[in-house]
Amino acid sequence: MIEEEARRRIGAARVGRLASVDANVQPHVVPICFAMSGDQVVSVVDGKPKRTLQLRRLENVRRRPDVQLMVDYYDDDWSLLWWVRISGRGRVIEHGSAREEAVDLLAAKYGQYREHRPTGPVLLIEITRISSWQATTS
Amino acid sequence: MIEEEARRRIGAARVGRLASVDANVQPHVVPICFAMSGDQVVSVVDGKPKRTLQLRRLENVRRRPDVQLMVDYYDDDWSLLWWVRISGRGRVIEHGSAREEAVDLLAAKYGQYREHRPTGPVLLIEITRISSWQATTS
Repeated sequence: MIEEEARRRIGAARVGRLASVDANVQPHVVPICFAMSGDQVVSVVDGKPKRTLQLRRLENVRRRPDVQLMVDYYDDDWSLLWWVRISGRGRVIEHGSAREEAVDLLAAKYGQYREHRPTGPVLLIEITRISSWQATTS
Repeated sequence: MIEEEARRRIGAARVGRLASVDANVQPHVVPICFAMSGDQVVSVVDGKPKRTLQLRRLENVRRRPDVQLMVDYYDDDWSLLWWVRISGRGRVIEHGSAREEAVDLLAAKYGQYREHRPTGPVLLIEITRISSWQATTS
């Protein structure tokens, strides 16, 4: 898959799975909504429910910025499978214009963020690598 | 979500996302097909395509057995969202009866594994914890 196509699929995906590493060198994975712009991916913590679990990923990123984000398609017809994986370095943005721009980007993609603009911290990932895989149709 | 329901959803899921940690303390995430039996989850490397990338997860597990497996449901109606996360310890099984039993389990779930029985190593995860989250319908 060429990078342009990989980027198109990342941009179109409604959900991805974010992997990080915690203080005890344990893996952590959580589904996230996100938006991409250029070489950045942004996500936001959107409020009350499961506050502690949602903050886990932010705590991890503050200590160990390296993350991966997986976007993939599953079908029982395995000739249709593909995935795109982003590797990057994350940082947490609590306020300021970079945070507002990230939320704007998310609001443009998800109606829920337009209805209720999220007030929590933003996770901003600088993409360092994009890798991808696609099933070979036989 | 009670654990019984979480387990039911894991069992019914066709795909999950496996997170591990590599030798350089970097996160790694990959979609996998898997089957669950009791407190074990099994997966198998199914052949030629992308051999090196598929083996990455096995190399990670050999060095650092701790993994997480995420099973989740996404819908643009966020009141329907849920996820179930398995934490566990993985090991790689290259041959023997434990490997055959794992492949039997996978073959019972996926037709592709019945048509072409996979010959690669099995990843066996001993579940240590199941956590879950479900959107609260308002």
